[in-house]
Amino acid sequence: MSEETSYNPRTGHIVAVIRHSSPSELTGRLSSAALAAPELAKTPPGKRATWLRAIADAMEEPSVCETLVALADAETALGEERLAAELVRTAGQLRFYAEVAEEGSFLGVTRDRAVEQAPQLSRMMVPLGPVAVFGASNFPFAFGVLGNDTASALASGCPVLAKAHPAHPQLSVALASVAHNALSDAGAPEGTFALVVGFEAGTTLVRSEDISAVAFTGSQRGGLALWKAATERPVPIPVFAEMGTVNPVVVTPSVTSLTDVARGFVGSFTLSAGQYCTKPGLLLAPRGREMASEVTRALQSADPQGWALTESIVRHVITGIDRLVESNARLVAQVAGPSYGWSVPATVLEVPLDSLQADGRLLEECFGPVALIAEYDDMAEVRALVPRLPGALAASVMTAGPEDPDTAGLVAALSTRVGRVAVDQWPTGVAFRWAQQHGGPWPATTRPASTSVGAAALERFVRPVAFQSVPDAALPPALQEANPWGLRRRVDGAVG
Amino acid sequence: MSEETSYNPRTGHIVAVIRHSSPSELTGRLSSAALAAPELAKTPPGKRATWLRAIADAMEEPSVCETLVALADAETALGEERLAAELVRTAGQLRFYAEVAEEGSFLGVTRDRAVEQAPQLSRMMVPLGPVAVFGASNFPFAFGVLGNDTASALASGCPVLAKAHPAHPQLSVALASVAHNALSDAGAPEGTFALVVGFEAGTTLVRSEDISAVAFTGSQRGGLALWKAATERPVPIPVFAEMGTVNPVVVTPSVTSLTDVARGFVGSFTLSAGQYCTKPGLLLAPRGREMASEVTRALQSADPQGWALTESIVRHVITGIDRLVESNARLVAQVAGPSYGWSVPATVLEVPLDSLQADGRLLEECFGPVALIAEYDDMAEVRALVPRLPGALAASVMTAGPEDPDTAGLVAALSTRVGRVAVDQWPTGVAFRWAQQHGGPWPATTRPASTSVGAAALERFVRPVAFQSVPDAALPPALQEANPWGLRRRVDGAVG
Repeated sequence: MSEETSYNPRTGHIVAVIRHSSPSELTGRLSSAALAAPELAKTPPGKRATWLRAIADAMEEPSVCETLVALADAETALGEERLAAELVRTAGQLRFYAEVAEEGSFLGVTRDRAVEQAPQLSRMMVPLGPVAVFGASNFPFAFGVLGNDTASALASGCPVLAKAHPAHPQLSVALASVAHNALSDAGAPEGTFALVVGFEAGTTLVRSEDISAVAFTGSQRGGLALWKAATERPVPIPVFAEMGTVNPVVVTPSVTSLTDVARGFVGSFTLSAGQYCTKPGLLLAPRGREMASEVTRALQSADPQGWALTESIVRHVITGIDRLVESNARLVAQVAGPSYGWSVPATVLEVPLDSLQADGRLLEECFGPVALIAEYDDMAEVRALVPRLPGALAASVMTAGPEDPDTAGLVAALSTRVGRVAVDQWPTGVAFRWAQQHGGPWPATTRPASTSVGAAALERFVRPVAFQSVPDAALPPALQEANPWGLRRRVDGAVG
Repeated sequence: MSEETSYNPRTGHIVAVIRHSSPSELTGRLSSAALAAPELAKTPPGKRATWLRAIADAMEEPSVCETLVALADAETALGEERLAAELVRTAGQLRFYAEVAEEGSFLGVTRDRAVEQAPQLSRMMVPLGPVAVFGASNFPFAFGVLGNDTASALASGCPVLAKAHPAHPQLSVALASVAHNALSDAGAPEGTFALVVGFEAGTTLVRSEDISAVAFTGSQRGGLALWKAATERPVPIPVFAEMGTVNPVVVTPSVTSLTDVARGFVGSFTLSAGQYCTKPGLLLAPRGREMASEVTRALQSADPQGWALTESIVRHVITGIDRLVESNARLVAQVAGPSYGWSVPATVLEVPLDSLQADGRLLEECFGPVALIAEYDDMAEVRALVPRLPGALAASVMTAGPEDPDTAGLVAALSTRVGRVAVDQWPTGVAFRWAQQHGGPWPATTRPASTSVGAAALERFVRPVAFQSVPDAALPPALQEANPWGLRRRVDGAVG
């Protein structure tokens, strides 16, 4: 196969055919990235910030924006309204990471003056080098070739080689072209950003000596395969894979009306046909309160309609539901999707709480509009279950309000298994902010100490270097006495 | 084998026989650590700091100190003077990590208030859980069972299970006893720290579900074996292995007298019989300046005497020298060690610069008093070589003073391959300070973005969690509005 073919999920018809990168193109792009790496590393973060803003501005240019949204909708069927909002969000992300780069705390600049028993030491983060970015199908802008991973890698000073997503290769090419022109106009070195197309190209990146790190958003299968390949290299490199999980939601016994909870749950797990890595896949509700009936009513009344992003997702939803039923889950409600295209049924199943512990397959993600309900007798049962849940990106607690006596205990328990705990909000929706954490214990990510969204996302792509008794003029600018980059620094242990 | 036998390197005679931990002892220690983990996590860092200081004080109690140094000398032959200084340093480390814990920046406390499009978010680091520590043979105090890894793991809020080192098991037991009593008296939970003995015990730790991270200091072989085992777990855990490397030193062409350089080089690579992970194993000197003769003279005049820590190191030094000779290195000077015990000859070899690139075996560490010299024609040759050097912990540049025109370029080039670059100082000697970086690109460590010495060492043992719209009373104390732990925090992007 030497081409990537994309389809319209509404029809299954071909939208575009994109030629795979040739071996010589790949070699050229890798060399360019390697040559650009030291240039980017020595560019002040404030300058790199202008490059990111240039990409953001270019994306939002009305005619560009319109074209990109139309391309995205043709290949993903996520709807022009949602996609237009996502494009604006993506421009916002690029500007946010620009701001974080400029602020400079991620460089961790630290200076210790010489003392009697120890020499002068300075320490700062330096960029790792070219990063391979594998974006997700479900957010073609926000987690795509110009999404959080690319933006934070560029902000941290690393060139990016992004792989076109097979579910939206045409959009990937268009976005790469926007970025390439914007970067070039803004004065960024050739090699700062490039696209590669094709599965083989992706494999080549992960194995290349010129690649220093991998960022991935998508399925467990894809992420773990990249992680394994990178781990088997002669010189292993970090893989920051953020993967879909079963994100648990606990409804406390004090919640009196489950009607609103049921509506919110349905809205969250069927959003964009359930194709969110933070989809609430498991709802734990107090026993005997008719949670299943409430959810059934909410589902039927919502009548969610949407398409799977790929034909393979359709198959996985169908086999995933079968697998859940084989594992003792009972189908309680199902609403068919659209009558044409890659339609998937919105599906709710119920399972006894003790089955969750006994059969690990119940806690494997089913990517699509599928969710489980389990009823508990008391908090002791929930507390016993939580440590057995696999690591997840997020969890929610639905409470009876600020005085709910179970909130603190559940937040604390869930925080041991996830990267983010929300109260009275659904796990879907990940704002790019300073305090964001989009990650979580294995297998939510291959690097639980990192985040793919938020200010700390930059920290993935740097490593520290210390300079001992190095004369001022031979130090990198960020460490020099005169502080030419104007950064906040820690000196002799005290933050300036 | 159900016992660990230690020997006196000066005689090869048995010093002590220590029983291996039994399976039931291991199970008990793992359970205690798992039970202690949530207790430690909720203890304020300032309180944990008092525990570390209690251990430091207990070690320095004169009679305890005297006993420990005597035990250490019997098992390591490193000399009482050096070991007494190392014990004091180790107490200093414990107090330093206590200070870093108290200061609290490692918790990265960040709060974003709710805005129109995004909810309230708070983020902080939480401890990973029990850490398995595998200390080194060459620093029985500073990198031993109570060394940098244990101190920084405890400071970060993680219980520690330390493995007794087979080269000094008796000292390991004695240190563990000091720590256990001090922690107990200071009110630390049972399970905060424990020792395990034996190879099987170490393997059990790395595979146990109760262990969340591994810290290791030692050989490539040992570190990579642990890394592989941890990577193959159903739920992989991070291994922070800091391993010995060939730390390169470049002498610039402007250096006029090589006599002092030669003396310094010999002093550094023969220190403690060359058993430093930061030993300068490769000296690059300008051609035609008689570097080899200068080093020969310096070596003969220094007449370094010391013992290998283990019999296996003796064998590895001998076969290592043979391997270097097979790889085109030429023996230029050798001074025999003591006439008794585990003696190793201090050895200098010379090799053509182009052989270094051609034969990777020349750049494998030979742990002991062995070093290579290679002459270069010009800076272009050095610049071409540096990117081919394997990752290392440290590098040095020996200059003609502050005006040396080659310093900045060499510092910049070497900083791409190592964790620390020193100017006019030898790489041996790693101060515990805020700006320290003891790590480096693979294979210097399995986690090049981390450090095993210095304030940032704590960051290895935590992961971030975000709390979204969580009521104040249900937040961890560090994130609560009233800031009961009194930490510096970032609020809405601004550092307080």
